[in-house]
Amino acid sequence: MVSLKKLVWKREKKTGLPPGTPIFIGEKKAVETKITLLDYDDIRFQQKDVREVEECFPFKETSTVTWINIDGLHDVEVIERLGENFDIHPLVLEDIVNTQQRPKMEEIGHQIFIVIKMLSYDEEKNETQVEQVSLILGENYVISFQEREGDIFNSLRERIRSGKGRIRKMGSDYLAYALLDAVVDHYFIILEKDGEKIEALEEKVVTDPKPDTLQEIHKLKREMIFLRRSVWPLRELINGLEKGESSLIDKSTRIYLRDVYDHTIQVIDTLETYRDMLSGMHDTYLSSVSNRMNEVMKILTIVATIFIPLTFIAGIYGMNFEFMPELGWRWAYFAVWGVILIIAVLMVIFFRKKKWL
Amino acid sequence: MVSLKKLVWKREKKTGLPPGTPIFIGEKKAVETKITLLDYDDIRFQQKDVREVEECFPFKETSTVTWINIDGLHDVEVIERLGENFDIHPLVLEDIVNTQQRPKMEEIGHQIFIVIKMLSYDEEKNETQVEQVSLILGENYVISFQEREGDIFNSLRERIRSGKGRIRKMGSDYLAYALLDAVVDHYFIILEKDGEKIEALEEKVVTDPKPDTLQEIHKLKREMIFLRRSVWPLRELINGLEKGESSLIDKSTRIYLRDVYDHTIQVIDTLETYRDMLSGMHDTYLSSVSNRMNEVMKILTIVATIFIPLTFIAGIYGMNFEFMPELGWRWAYFAVWGVILIIAVLMVIFFRKKKWL
Amino acid sequence: MVSLKKLVWKREKKTGLPPGTPIFIGEKKAVETKITLLDYDDIRFQQKDVREVEECFPFKETSTVTWINIDGLHDVEVIERLGENFDIHPLVLEDIVNTQQRPKMEEIGHQIFIVIKMLSYDEEKNETQVEQVSLILGENYVISFQEREGDIFNSLRERIRSGKGRIRKMGSDYLAYALLDAVVDHYFIILEKDGEKIEALEEKVVTDPKPDTLQEIHKLKREMIFLRRSVWPLRELINGLEKGESSLIDKSTRIYLRDVYDHTIQVIDTLETYRDMLSGMHDTYLSSVSNRMNEVMKILTIVATIFIPLTFIAGIYGMNFEFMPELGWRWAYFAVWGVILIIAVLMVIFFRKKKWL
Amino acid sequence: MVSLKKLVWKREKKTGLPPGTPIFIGEKKAVETKITLLDYDDIRFQQKDVREVEECFPFKETSTVTWINIDGLHDVEVIERLGENFDIHPLVLEDIVNTQQRPKMEEIGHQIFIVIKMLSYDEEKNETQVEQVSLILGENYVISFQEREGDIFNSLRERIRSGKGRIRKMGSDYLAYALLDAVVDHYFIILEKDGEKIEALEEKVVTDPKPDTLQEIHKLKREMIFLRRSVWPLRELINGLEKGESSLIDKSTRIYLRDVYDHTIQVIDTLETYRDMLSGMHDTYLSSVSNRMNEVMKILTIVATIFIPLTFIAGIYGMNFEFMPELGWRWAYFAVWGVILIIAVLMVIFFRKKKWL
Amino acid sequence: MVSLKKLVWKREKKTGLPPGTPIFIGEKKAVETKITLLDYDDIRFQQKDVREVEECFPFKETSTVTWINIDGLHDVEVIERLGENFDIHPLVLEDIVNTQQRPKMEEIGHQIFIVIKMLSYDEEKNETQVEQVSLILGENYVISFQEREGDIFNSLRERIRSGKGRIRKMGSDYLAYALLDAVVDHYFIILEKDGEKIEALEEKVVTDPKPDTLQEIHKLKREMIFLRRSVWPLRELINGLEKGESSLIDKSTRIYLRDVYDHTIQVIDTLETYRDMLSGMHDTYLSSVSNRMNEVMKILTIVATIFIPLTFIAGIYGMNFEFMPELGWRWAYFAVWGVILIIAVLMVIFFRKKKWL
Repeated sequence: MVSLKKLVWKREKKTGLPPGTPIFIGEKKAVETKITLLDYDDIRFQQKDVREVEECFPFKETSTVTWINIDGLHDVEVIERLGENFDIHPLVLEDIVNTQQRPKMEEIGHQIFIVIKMLSYDEEKNETQVEQVSLILGENYVISFQEREGDIFNSLRERIRSGKGRIRKMGSDYLAYALLDAVVDHYFIILEKDGEKIEALEEKVVTDPKPDTLQEIHKLKREMIFLRRSVWPLRELINGLEKGESSLIDKSTRIYLRDVYDHTIQVIDTLETYRDMLSGMHDTYLSSVSNRMNEVMKILTIVATIFIPLTFIAGIYGMNFEFMPELGWRWAYFAVWGVILIIAVLMVIFFRKKKWL
Repeated sequence: MVSLKKLVWKREKKTGLPPGTPIFIGEKKAVETKITLLDYDDIRFQQKDVREVEECFPFKETSTVTWINIDGLHDVEVIERLGENFDIHPLVLEDIVNTQQRPKMEEIGHQIFIVIKMLSYDEEKNETQVEQVSLILGENYVISFQEREGDIFNSLRERIRSGKGRIRKMGSDYLAYALLDAVVDHYFIILEKDGEKIEALEEKVVTDPKPDTLQEIHKLKREMIFLRRSVWPLRELINGLEKGESSLIDKSTRIYLRDVYDHTIQVIDTLETYRDMLSGMHDTYLSSVSNRMNEVMKILTIVATIFIPLTFIAGIYGMNFEFMPELGWRWAYFAVWGVILIIAVLMVIFFRKKKWL
Repeated sequence: MVSLKKLVWKREKKTGLPPGTPIFIGEKKAVETKITLLDYDDIRFQQKDVREVEECFPFKETSTVTWINIDGLHDVEVIERLGENFDIHPLVLEDIVNTQQRPKMEEIGHQIFIVIKMLSYDEEKNETQVEQVSLILGENYVISFQEREGDIFNSLRERIRSGKGRIRKMGSDYLAYALLDAVVDHYFIILEKDGEKIEALEEKVVTDPKPDTLQEIHKLKREMIFLRRSVWPLRELINGLEKGESSLIDKSTRIYLRDVYDHTIQVIDTLETYRDMLSGMHDTYLSSVSNRMNEVMKILTIVATIFIPLTFIAGIYGMNFEFMPELGWRWAYFAVWGVILIIAVLMVIFFRKKKWL
Repeated sequence: MVSLKKLVWKREKKTGLPPGTPIFIGEKKAVETKITLLDYDDIRFQQKDVREVEECFPFKETSTVTWINIDGLHDVEVIERLGENFDIHPLVLEDIVNTQQRPKMEEIGHQIFIVIKMLSYDEEKNETQVEQVSLILGENYVISFQEREGDIFNSLRERIRSGKGRIRKMGSDYLAYALLDAVVDHYFIILEKDGEKIEALEEKVVTDPKPDTLQEIHKLKREMIFLRRSVWPLRELINGLEKGESSLIDKSTRIYLRDVYDHTIQVIDTLETYRDMLSGMHDTYLSSVSNRMNEVMKILTIVATIFIPLTFIAGIYGMNFEFMPELGWRWAYFAVWGVILIIAVLMVIFFRKKKWL
Repeated sequence: MVSLKKLVWKREKKTGLPPGTPIFIGEKKAVETKITLLDYDDIRFQQKDVREVEECFPFKETSTVTWINIDGLHDVEVIERLGENFDIHPLVLEDIVNTQQRPKMEEIGHQIFIVIKMLSYDEEKNETQVEQVSLILGENYVISFQEREGDIFNSLRERIRSGKGRIRKMGSDYLAYALLDAVVDHYFIILEKDGEKIEALEEKVVTDPKPDTLQEIHKLKREMIFLRRSVWPLRELINGLEKGESSLIDKSTRIYLRDVYDHTIQVIDTLETYRDMLSGMHDTYLSSVSNRMNEVMKILTIVATIFIPLTFIAGIYGMNFEFMPELGWRWAYFAVWGVILIIAVLMVIFFRKKKWL
């Protein structure tokens, strides 16, 4: 479950610097910045682990599709060198290394800049992890930036290597689409995890509502706020890519973008449904609790209402007056018992009629 | 009533495959994929149960209207062969066999692809059943895909066979409309069923509110979420068909689409009304419960408030002090009874004034 | 007040018939279908009770304005004959006799088809009555359909007969406007009735809140849902007439349509205000009830808190130990009374400080 | 504070009359209809109290700016004569005398017709007063209609007379703007009054919440509904004037309209903020009340929980069995006191731990 | 935290003056109006503390970028002189000195006028401070107005002096952007402060909910209303600058404006998230409180339900009847103890089953 900290704004001091100064903002997650390069077209394929960022520069001009993937954003200097060579706008560089961006898409010069949030589920910590992924789409290259090394793009890499599907036949726009698709596909795993948790809670809320249950509902509600914030802007983003007039995106790729768009809508729909369900569960919890309260009150009332008057009767004949004629009567004691029993029975009948018993 | 599972996201593993790979996602509902073919125009009519999907291929080119209906989506290979022959885009094939699609409409190449949700009421299980129906509308053919065999299109088939109405005189666009119309018409049956349930609950909530009643309200609320999710996108979908500029849809058919559109709006309107009513019932339930609670409290208070002071008085004269002058008085006992009765009567008057009795 | 049934979807079986088959859906309210015809222009005027629908047909071609009014929709055959002669689209005929339509406006061929809801207040049953009114506006005729005979259009008829106002000088579009205006004008009567009920409740909620009061609030809330559903689509409908480009509606009439539009907005505004007020009253009711509850609890607490400790003291000296030195003291009894009084007085002071007394 | 009556729809009988029949609807507030005329341009200035409406007619054609102000709308005949001479559309006349209009703006023929709501605060009755103000803006005249004589336009009149500001140099459109501006400026006085009330309540809600406090919150909430209804349509109205293409409004005046528009937005913003604050105060009230309830319950519980078991112990030794060995023991009485004190102390420790004491 | 006063409308008397009369409305925060002038281009740089406003006038015509900053708005006469020389529209001057403006942007003549709200956090008073900042952007000058001297623009001034970043190479539009950017950047500090407070509250609400906690939640909620009101209009404002067609804003600056726009969206997003979180905390608080209430009730019920019947039994044998056979029995006393213990144990078992113990 998402912790509170992810929802609260945190920012290391940055004020006073001119705009376009890239400064890393985020947790330092990777030990070392790692650069991987893939270069391919229909026929050729080349994979390369890059030591020095300068090794990538020659690929900028080639007609093959080049995918440069950078894991780890804290080494700002490397990113600046890359940015300079690939003519990336300083504001874009600043956004890439500031990991608190909202998902967005911008066409600047001859490039499209995309920021999205990658969500993954950390089984160990039982927590949703969020990571910022930035993409630069150029004429025949895609540069992707990740906060740390991850395996989410591995199957895509494998697909390129093996030449499966149409990816080797398409341009850099299709590669960018494939990256987006991989990220959005991962959202469904989070949805499934949260769905399971909601199902588990549903059971609990009715049968055994405890303050903890409510706490869990609230945590899931907060997770929904968090996911919503990460996914909602994607809708506009992908729509912008699909409907936009950029020459970087080929018509044949637009159909695929439409497909990711549909997936995004599905994610949003499911989030809204989860939200509604959690609200419903909150209501159910409150009713369950108030139900129990009512039961408690009924029992108190039944016991008190029956015995308080009886105790009064007993109290009366516990008085020490000298002249209390009943005290001397032969069957008085048993008569009192009779009266007590009659009262008790009438009370029980009364409660039965009220449907409390 | 819809079970929780239908609202929660479920998906068999699929990650890592290239987009456009059709994989069946859903419950396996049909034993065998069954293909039925209808071919007709104003004069001719032909119905055929197809064994091998290849038998359908020749009908693609004929000038008559051809309706190919496939029941059962798990045999992906058959669907792929069909898709290849009819030039269906791989992404569309993928969507057809993934039964968790959101209703949508897309024009791809020379075809319009429509996904909608069919709702039916399973009397035995007392449950709303949902099934995905996909339509491919081409120049002179319609291909429809259902998860399992159903009887919803039977009356349409009968109408085509008998040549009743105008369907035999119209093109494939009218056939697609007729299929949509049949699905939307079925929604009203669900609305009626749910309407009956709401009416039944309405009674209960006021006369005999129990935790179960609330549970039922919540289940119906959830059903509304579910129906909403299935029906809402239809609005846009049908509007897109009616207002769209596709040459596949004739002007004369657009009037009919407008009619289905009106029905959809009516369904949505009714859903919203049901929702409002269920919210109102929830409020009524809570008030009823709190009313009962108040009654319980009043009885407790009346009994306790009357008898606790009286018991105190009895307690006083139950004390064993040697020098308690009243104990020896002749009429003391009766005087105490008098005091007790006066207090009790005053209390009752007080409660009457407070309108508690 | 509106009953639940009007909000719940009801529909006699109709499935399986081709679209455009007119089937009467609704309560059979009129014994007999009654047709009235008015034909007029600036100079001439003619009123006629029609026996056979065929008598109306010659008026279709005349240059005078013709108003055909049909009361009672169950005789579908008559309506079909009329429809055939006046070239009414089958889907329109189907909508006319199905009285569960949503208010709407459509231009089909050379006619404008309008469906609206007429609301009237049945003093006897203390109930809001709803009735569907359909209008067909043609070049120089208006055909109106009502579920049963009513007096709402009488004053309009009188105005035409007497030639008062401008109606005799205007075309059929102005007649259609006048019919709409008469219907919308009637809404204000319902608003006034409901306003009176709300004012009456307002008083009750504060002074004497009972479960019945809440029930009435809920019923009025439901009436608001119902009225909203009938009136809201009118906004778009009339706007469509006013802003539309139909040649059937003269520019001079559009100013009048703007006036009805303003009235509709006023109705909607008032409905929203009523809704807000009813929500406020609901809150007030709940607070009133919880207030009373608090008072009950306070009294219980005061009585119990004062007398329970006192009873304990009395209980102590009711013990039968042989060696209880106090029992033999001369003023012990009076001392105990003193202690009891002091405790009681302290308690009362305490409660005063807490502002409970 | 606004009374309920202003929110509920009231209307004297009017049904059955042709549209465009002006009938006065509203409270008769002025004893006599009073007409004041101002005629001015850069150089000339003339003020005139008009006896007969016909005296105004010659000013229609002059090139100077003419402002005719009518106080009191019940003398419909005078307004009709004016309307005839100035070519005012009958529907407009009807709207002028019907004081339940929604604020709106319409361009009809060569005139712009504006309806707005003037709000003033009646110190004596401690009530917000609403009054309808209608404006007719023509080529070189403005006709304003008020329900009764007021002082709101006095300073404007003074400004015209003295030639202060730019008003004498501008046309009739600027005069209309100045009237609007005077009305909107007055809204801020109401906002200030309500703001003061809200501040006063804020204090009360926390320190001394009583049912009356809640009642006042509800009354202010209702006032917000009422103000909202009067002000909200103004936004669209003024925007329409500013952005509209009417030749009646000079470009130089549009900047000033923009200014009134900003003020209107500010009023709406403040209303929304007040609403949010009142909702917050409602919540605070409920929490305060529930807090007190909890305190009451705690005290009851503490007292009952301590003394009920102790009373039981005392009861035990009040039993009259012949063979109760403890009764004869020498220190039994004191031992019982010891037990009682120990139990009491343990209870207190327990409550301390629970943080109830 | 923001105090109530900032949300409530306050306005010194102003009514009756012609529009465009600048009157200072706000707290007098600065002792003296202080004017600072910066004049620079790529090569030259000049800073000047201005005594007499007339010293600024020559800079209007120079081709260098001139930034005139005025701290303190109460000296209306100085501002009027400045306004006259720089051709500032009287309505704009009026808005500049009225510090209750809503953030807005207007293009009037050859200038763009911008009003925004500067937020800063006063550590001493533990309060969010709001201050109105107005900007006039002309061909080659920017005039900025602040309510009092502040240090928010110091780093910008330093950047201009040192020639760091691109600011010296850009025009006045970039300077205006830089000022906006500085203000928006400051919002994040407020967000961080409030985020810390929310995190601190989160803890408290669950572990130790007190009325104070609720009060703090409400105060933060109100702060959100306040911030929202200040930030929300900025969205439209900056969008208007970026998308607008003003020739004053160069294309190269628009990319930077897009960046501020993104920051604004981020601020709004975070505000919405905080709001949702505070609502969630409010719910949690109420549940925590109701939980405690339930616990209190349970303890009362357990104690009362166990001891009230036992006290009754003791009461019975405290009666003084002469013929009570049990009293003389040898083991009766011990038998009664036995019965009492059995009842107590059964009760405890019952409560265990109910999960109350």
